[in-house]
Amino acid sequence: MSRDVGAFAVSKRLLLIALIALPLSALAPARALSQVDPLPSWKDGAAKSAIVDFVARVTTQGGRDFVPPAERIATFDNDGTLWTEQPFYFQLAFAFDRVKAMAPEHPDWKTRQPFKALIEKDSKALAASGEKGLLQIVMATHAGMTTDAFASSVRDWLATARHPRFNRPYDSLVYQPMLELLAYLRANGFKTFVVSGGGVEFMRPWMERVYGIPPEQVVGSSGVVKFQIGADGKPVLMKEAKVEFIDDGPGKPVGINRFIGRRPIFAFGNSDGDLQMLQWTVAGSGARFAGIVHHTDAVREYAYDRQSRIGKLDKALDAASAGGWTVVDMKQDWKEVFPPLTAAGAATEAKP
Amino acid sequence: MSRDVGAFAVSKRLLLIALIALPLSALAPARALSQVDPLPSWKDGAAKSAIVDFVARVTTQGGRDFVPPAERIATFDNDGTLWTEQPFYFQLAFAFDRVKAMAPEHPDWKTRQPFKALIEKDSKALAASGEKGLLQIVMATHAGMTTDAFASSVRDWLATARHPRFNRPYDSLVYQPMLELLAYLRANGFKTFVVSGGGVEFMRPWMERVYGIPPEQVVGSSGVVKFQIGADGKPVLMKEAKVEFIDDGPGKPVGINRFIGRRPIFAFGNSDGDLQMLQWTVAGSGARFAGIVHHTDAVREYAYDRQSRIGKLDKALDAASAGGWTVVDMKQDWKEVFPPLTAAGAATEAKP
Repeated sequence: MSRDVGAFAVSKRLLLIALIALPLSALAPARALSQVDPLPSWKDGAAKSAIVDFVARVTTQGGRDFVPPAERIATFDNDGTLWTEQPFYFQLAFAFDRVKAMAPEHPDWKTRQPFKALIEKDSKALAASGEKGLLQIVMATHAGMTTDAFASSVRDWLATARHPRFNRPYDSLVYQPMLELLAYLRANGFKTFVVSGGGVEFMRPWMERVYGIPPEQVVGSSGVVKFQIGADGKPVLMKEAKVEFIDDGPGKPVGINRFIGRRPIFAFGNSDGDLQMLQWTVAGSGARFAGIVHHTDAVREYAYDRQSRIGKLDKALDAASAGGWTVVDMKQDWKEVFPPLTAAGAATEAKP
Repeated sequence: MSRDVGAFAVSKRLLLIALIALPLSALAPARALSQVDPLPSWKDGAAKSAIVDFVARVTTQGGRDFVPPAERIATFDNDGTLWTEQPFYFQLAFAFDRVKAMAPEHPDWKTRQPFKALIEKDSKALAASGEKGLLQIVMATHAGMTTDAFASSVRDWLATARHPRFNRPYDSLVYQPMLELLAYLRANGFKTFVVSGGGVEFMRPWMERVYGIPPEQVVGSSGVVKFQIGADGKPVLMKEAKVEFIDDGPGKPVGINRFIGRRPIFAFGNSDGDLQMLQWTVAGSGARFAGIVHHTDAVREYAYDRQSRIGKLDKALDAASAGGWTVVDMKQDWKEVFPPLTAAGAATEAKP
């Protein structure tokens, strides 16, 4: 190395000064960073302390609980944990909107349930179509097209659709404190994953932009996809109307095993659908963190738990209490819920 | 920042010198690196040039073919591409050895085919059991246990088993030139993935150590896994005797879509089982690289292609010829095939 430096005609004296000065100047930004609160939207309290203490413990070299960076796997549920899930899962809102957008190409839908009910905003008839009707709507809007075409339809929808209560783009209804948490973990060498019951092809087109989580770190439910050579000789991947994997409840540790192949040391959820992921996480040896977002804020967001039809939090709340898991009280623990809207109307990006 | 530096009592002059000196000293290691051949086991020739040229094109900021680091996805087949696959897939050797190791706990195997044939080394009876027999052997050795227990059995086997011809540990029969290629791509901002027909749970326990590829970047075939709460109240993942996904042929682009969610720009295979992965890779827009390892070296490894029962390379060789893909001639293009054995008898590690 010294020979190469010599090639740049750097005097030995200058080099020595640089080597001495380097550690000092290198320290400066680190010191500046530690003076800045990495979780500014979190109020001081038990939840924030538990997070910060855990991260300090597993990242302290030589400490009893030190975890090498490669094993710092953190998994997050999405619906209700990273973004809102009320008044119904946003993916369902997407499916409903898509039926309306696709209706002109499907004249038969005018007389066919459950599509007719949806087009005519007949909520009674829609409810009467039940789970079977819902599945028909999901399949009609999620299958029979290429993976690329589907991803485009998701992006188009996010750019135009607005949440009925907040009148904001759906991807702006993400939790600012959780965006900070994701960035904080990554800054501490964690690899952050989404492990959601939502469709993996629905989540991947926007999560990198909004959460800083790349497609290969998004685990979700999936439909069967088939490889085909198109009429133009080009290969495509076609989405079929057949469920392949449901990444929910006991499916979450299974999905984690399948996609990540390593047990998380940190996991966050908000409902009984996350119970097994949290159980699987804390059952590993060494330091473990299990967190739950408890929706307690009807004013700024929603308040629901044990009795809710969507995002029911009952068994997991008992398990949290028994296991000493961290339960975040949205109303008490979060200074802000959503990020400010940028001029463009989209959420502030949370790039790593 | 200047205030923080001030807190460290660094004189302004010293700081200025440091700032000037920094870029020069920082350049030194980079320059040293560029003088070292990153692919020393590759002979100069068309294959090596194609690789180096491609990497230069996609990493040149401002160039026509520049690809942002997040999209630099490289996928590699495993059997026959990163390690040897003759005289039969190593995972099969594992299964055969496991039957022998597990036999004492299964006295019925002494009289039950295909286990009896395997224990008695009766190759004729084993062959007669056909594909059904093979599947029985795989299921008996790959299911009915926890994922953790299976991973341990893989590690134990690698530590003791030896290849019949080379008398080396199986995980030392990896290709030195490909280890260099993996490291070279990663040094250039690529994320390297394995996309193999092999079992994902068979590959993950050793690929991080041997290839520098972490579990979450290993895509493979899989069996059904079930979440259970054990008798001790602890959750476990049980491997069931049911195939879930075959990551081979058209399954490879499907597996890439499912696990990675992003099309590779660089892919390497060695057989017709990789054809669709390579087609899928080159069908994307922008610069793309498709490579094939052609086994032409019967002396140092094996020579086989169009007629081979294992690793048949026929349609993909025609596609390579038609599409101008890079075909590596093992005998001509590689100075070395395998890495040197370390004192411990294991392959040289290829950590990133």
